[in-house]
This record gives sequence, structure tokens and C-alpha cells, in this order.
Amino acid sequence: MDPKILKELVIPGAAKIVFLILDGLGGIQMEEKGGTELQIARTPNLDRLAETSSCGLLDPVGPGITPGSGPAHFALFGYDPFEYNIGRGILEATGIDFPLTERDVVARMNFATIDQAGRVVDRRAGRIATEINQRICRKLSQELQVGEGVKVMVEPVKEHRAILVLRGEGLRGEIEDTDPEREGVPPLDPKAAVPEAERTASLVGKIVAQTGKILSAEPKANMVLLRGFAKHTQYPSMKERYGLHSLAIATYPMYRGISRLVGMTVLSEVHNLKEEFQALTDHFPDYDFFYLHVKQTDSRGEDGNFDAKVAVIEEVDQYLPQVLALKPDVLVVTGDHSTPAKMAGHSWHPLPLILHSKYCLIDAVKKFDEVSCLGGALGRMRSVDLMPLALANARRLSKFGA
Amino acid sequence: MDPKILKELVIPGAAKIVFLILDGLGGIQMEEKGGTELQIARTPNLDRLAETSSCGLLDPVGPGITPGSGPAHFALFGYDPFEYNIGRGILEATGIDFPLTERDVVARMNFATIDQAGRVVDRRAGRIATEINQRICRKLSQELQVGEGVKVMVEPVKEHRAILVLRGEGLRGEIEDTDPEREGVPPLDPKAAVPEAERTASLVGKIVAQTGKILSAEPKANMVLLRGFAKHTQYPSMKERYGLHSLAIATYPMYRGISRLVGMTVLSEVHNLKEEFQALTDHFPDYDFFYLHVKQTDSRGEDGNFDAKVAVIEEVDQYLPQVLALKPDVLVVTGDHSTPAKMAGHSWHPLPLILHSKYCLIDAVKKFDEVSCLGGALGRMRSVDLMPLALANARRLSKFGA
Repeated sequence: MDPKILKELVIPGAAKIVFLILDGLGGIQMEEKGGTELQIARTPNLDRLAETSSCGLLDPVGPGITPGSGPAHFALFGYDPFEYNIGRGILEATGIDFPLTERDVVARMNFATIDQAGRVVDRRAGRIATEINQRICRKLSQELQVGEGVKVMVEPVKEHRAILVLRGEGLRGEIEDTDPEREGVPPLDPKAAVPEAERTASLVGKIVAQTGKILSAEPKANMVLLRGFAKHTQYPSMKERYGLHSLAIATYPMYRGISRLVGMTVLSEVHNLKEEFQALTDHFPDYDFFYLHVKQTDSRGEDGNFDAKVAVIEEVDQYLPQVLALKPDVLVVTGDHSTPAKMAGHSWHPLPLILHSKYCLIDAVKKFDEVSCLGGALGRMRSVDLMPLALANARRLSKFGA
Repeated sequence: MDPKILKELVIPGAAKIVFLILDGLGGIQMEEKGGTELQIARTPNLDRLAETSSCGLLDPVGPGITPGSGPAHFALFGYDPFEYNIGRGILEATGIDFPLTERDVVARMNFATIDQAGRVVDRRAGRIATEINQRICRKLSQELQVGEGVKVMVEPVKEHRAILVLRGEGLRGEIEDTDPEREGVPPLDPKAAVPEAERTASLVGKIVAQTGKILSAEPKANMVLLRGFAKHTQYPSMKERYGLHSLAIATYPMYRGISRLVGMTVLSEVHNLKEEFQALTDHFPDYDFFYLHVKQTDSRGEDGNFDAKVAVIEEVDQYLPQVLALKPDVLVVTGDHSTPAKMAGHSWHPLPLILHSKYCLIDAVKKFDEVSCLGGALGRMRSVDLMPLALANARRLSKFGA
């Protein structure tokens, strides 16, 4: 749906929408377990909800496409995942709650080890301790100087991972990675991908050269590899697009960061499922869109731990009555992408989906899993189309055409 | 999926993909037979495969659109059937393995009979014998002369069908058909559809005039009708697009030709189903994508012969264990389009589809037919999206976005 057309249809309302997003929810059958994670999990509350709702399957990005968390989440919020395919640097920055401005170019920065000949011998600098990372980042932030009114900031993330931020006028993000993505060769030069980025690329070249000198005495982290350069731009907010006053409840920084990019208010004081669902209850009167993110389904899927992923799903199921007690006008339960334990990683498989509202068509689906939802009223739809459907069920969209 | 984005996601791999394509596979119920061809056929092997796979339905081009073999096959190979809607002339040329160059403009040429007044009295010249066709084509190739550095070639296909090739610099394909598509009127003039094609159109005019003289003594084939003019252009290959080293196994020249257009290696020494499946086994170690084309399902459908089409399907079913014994990482069984015996021709109906891999979601479908597959995990998808899905199941696509 064209966001411009959608925006014209948006009407004010008091209806409340809850998106309960279980990260990496979808799975595939694991032979020795006798089904998918959702097929095996005992989820009486989710099943009961499925029985009185419209169900279906969501394609996060496209058939066969395994999405990263960035595009998968943008799509859920109704933002075209191709248009809003944000750079790795910006995603990392949002993940550490770094306050970006529209004058910033950001890159993901990995500390690495190079030998005397300048060849990369360890792309992750032996995964140095986060404390070393923090010390080095402080030093770099203090000592790096490129002039031209450009401020250089280096912020630690974790282990060998950090972000580089250049802040100034006229900077461009079209710069190629310096990470050669293999060892035994020197880092690549930061090349401009378009002529307009030549100046920024030469500033990055200075930064890399200075960094080499500043870090020359470090035993492991004596060089940096840069990738995913991008200029930060302001995204249209959920408020502008849908008239929604939105709250994000997430324990992991990256998801809080993505939420902030689309203008949600972000809670930072939640640390576990119990606190997340309690926060939903506590703040329910104050917003009209709620994004509650459950990270552990994805983490256990990434671990390849089928039983642990099942346990997380069962735990979330126990919190469902607490959500239903709030009587949200629209309740969506789904994921951002699949992370089958069998594959121990993200996958392309579509996600089971429940959409519950007073106005949903009730289909024959009686169990919340990948196969049961195939028979659902929503059929198979793209994630990016979910938000208009939620708005419609909230009676927050007017008629299109006369 | 944008081919450029897809190309960036492609990663090397050793997984092998087999596309078993039964031409014109799909059908509709024929009352007196009690079902569709697939519903009636006894296909224990295909049914067992369906039971352990993802099933679904493929829309070859679009809802309600009956595709020719060209667009239907391009879509299967992941090429947009609208963008790669190649001219009839080029399709015929590929069908006789004619080596086209990028300087060629090609048209389908039908021998026809005109009367003394120049009116078409038989658009197919009484379906003259192929031997007569060959003799006339030799004569035309020798005698046609248009100058301007343009070489004219006429190649026989079969019966009254041939192709006309103009080879030279700056030729254009935007020329209207000379075939009036009815009898009792003279052939049309070859008009340029765009101003840039004026010169080529006037060369075609010369060819038609000379042909009339050269063939004036022929009792039946005394004129030609031209249609489907197009300039040949090089297509991106399966290797370039997907990194796939591909083999085509097909008994009919046109399908070999289409395969060659997308850069597959093409076997020409196979003549029947037995040889086709044997060729798959023999060449299995040497490629990573295999297109095996079964023509007879379409031919019997075109004949309106329900029972004979059922028999072909049952015969293919018997070869399935031979394919499974090779343990392909991804096995797709489907068609290019439907050819219901009830309609005795191509149709717009979607095609049943099996996709089998270690990573497919197993749905509840237990029989391979048009109605059973409606409940499948792949839902209803466009043919052009099948290739990304096959690549994903072969683990030959990396993650999109961070």
C-alpha cells in the first residue's frame, strides 16, 4: 500500500493496537521432535486466541528471502523493507541508543589485528574484552582529528565491535567497506562509491591512518575494519504516517533503536518478560500502539535449542491472559522472521500470525502453528501489509474512494 | 524480487537443485472422468513426496493470464515474463538451435498460398511437407538479396513453418506482422512500429517482394506471412544471476532453445522419458541445477486426450524414485502452465507444486493434485518467485539486511 494513500485514509481514533512480536518465532519440523517448535509447544492461551481470530502467514520480505532484524522489523511497522534497508552502522548505533543526527555518517567498526606487513591476521582482534574496547574507543574519540569542521566519535558496542560516527556538513554515506572479509590481506581503502562521497572517503582514509598510529602499541586491537557506511536520515514517524502514539517495550537495545527510528517512545527500564508485560499493563492508558518484543525465541532458535525455544513460547503463552485483560481493540501475535532451531539461524520461512479484533473474520484455525495457520482467513501476506490491516481493525482508516 | 538485490545475496554452494517440469501439467475436472488428470492419475511416488514436502500452487504469469511456453518457462527460471517476453521468431530460432547473434532480427515465417489477385487462400500452404519447406528455404537463402550489408537467412522449422533472419548493423525489431490472420485478403505490408525501424521495415518489404517472385512457380507455398519480429539480445545467464552451473534435459527443440538463452548447457541426444531420466543420473555430478522437461503432458492435453495425459503423468511417477535416489538437495516438481484436456489448450489455471528439501516446512498435503495443493505451505505464488525459494532451500542465498 502506497504510504501516501494510506496516510490520507488515516482517521483519529481511540482504539488501541498491540503487536506482540516473538522474534524468530517461525520454525520447521525437527524430525526427532515430531514437529515445529510451535507445533510441540503447549500454548492453550494462544490456541484459544487463534480459534476466535483471523490467522494467516506473513512473508517478511519476499519468497526465499531471509531477512535481517532490520528489514524484518521495518516491514512489521509498515515501512518498505527495501526502501528502509538501513546500514549496519546505523543499526548498531540505534542498538546502543546513540543519539544520531541528520549530519551523521555511521559505520560499523570492528577492532582487528594486523601483522607487521599490514595484513589482517585476526578480523576480530581475538574478541577483546568489552573493557579494552571501551578504553580504546575513549582514546580514539579523544585523539582522532580530521579538521574541516567534522567531529569524529567512536563508541564501543561489545567485545571487538564499535561504531564510527562522522558528524559534519555535506558528508555522504556511499563509501565502500574496508573490511576485506578474509584474513591474510591488508584492509581495503575506503573508496567513494559515487563522486559526491570523495570528500567523506578521504576523511575516512585519514581516520584509518591515524587509528593505525594511535593503536600501534595495542597487542591485539591494532587496526579497525569498517563496514556498512550510511548517512542517517530521519524516517517518517508512526505518528506522521498512522497518527499512532506508540510505545516500544523491548529488552534488547537494537529493537529499541529501530523503534526510536520510527518515532516510538521507548522504555529502557525493562529487563525480562515479566517486566515487559507489566510495562504493557502500566502504560496501557497512555499510548495507542504498543510493540512488545520477545527476544528469547530468536536467541534459542539461533542456538539450535529446540526445547528451549519451545519453553520460551510456552512462557509467553502464560502472559497472554494478562494482555487480553487489557482488552486491546486489536491484538496481533506474530514474529519478525523465522529462526528454526533446526537451522540455528534466521530463515526465509513465513511466520504464523494471529490478528484478533471485534471485526476479524473468524476462520477454522484452532491452533497457533505454521501449518494450522495455512488455513487462516488472512492467507499469506507480506509483513508490510500488516499495519494497514491492524489500522483497519482499529477503525482508524476511512473509505478509499467514493 | 529485484534481480539486482537477489544477485547480491547469492553465495557459492555445492547444493544441487532439480526442476522436474511436466509441461501443461495442471488441469481441471472433466465431469465424465470424475476429476482432474492429476486427481485421477495413480501417482504413489509423487503423493509420498508431497506428503514430506512443501506444496502449493504456481501462477505462471498472472491471474487469468494464459501463458505461452516462452513466458511460462522464463518465469520458472526466475526471469520476469513481461520483461523477457521474447518474440515468436526468436522462440522458433532457439527451437531449431539456430545460432543467433546480437545483430539479428528474427521473424516467424509461414508459407502460404495466395491467389492470382494476391489474396491469401491458405495461411498454411496446405501444411506442405517438411522436405518441400527445406528445399524452398535453401532456394530463398541463396537468392534473396537486399544489399546494405544485410545478410538474409531463411531456415526451415517444420511443415509450413520457417524463420527469417536478417543479420546486419543497426537493424530493429519493431515491425508489424504481415500475417493478416485471416484468408481472403492480401498479406499486410511490413510497417515500422517506431520511426527507427523504417529502414529494417523497408528491407523486409524487399524480401517479401523478392520472395513472391522466387516462389511464383510453387503450387502451394507461393508466399510467406511474417510475424513476431524481434531483435535478439543477450540475456543474463543463470550463472551470472544465481551462480548456477545448469543443465537442460529436454526432448523438444524449443525448450532446449529457451534453456540456451539463459545460458544452460543443453543435452541434445535425449529422445524419450527413459533417456531423459537416465541423462539426469549420468550428468548429476557435473552441474548444480537441472531442468528436466517432460513434453507429453502438454501434447496430450492439447489433444484433449484426458486418459493419455493421465498415462503420461503415471509414467513420470514411475521415474521419480530414480530422481530421489540421486538425493538432490532441492527437488521441485511442477509445470510451466496448465493444459487441461477439457480445454485442449493452454490455460490460465495455477499449477500444483512440490518443493522438497531438508529445510521445507512439511504441510498437511498428502496428494499431488490441484485441489490438495491448495492447503500447502507455499500457498499460491508466482512462478517467477520459485527460483529464489529454491536457492534459499539450497542455502545459496545470504541474509538480506542487518
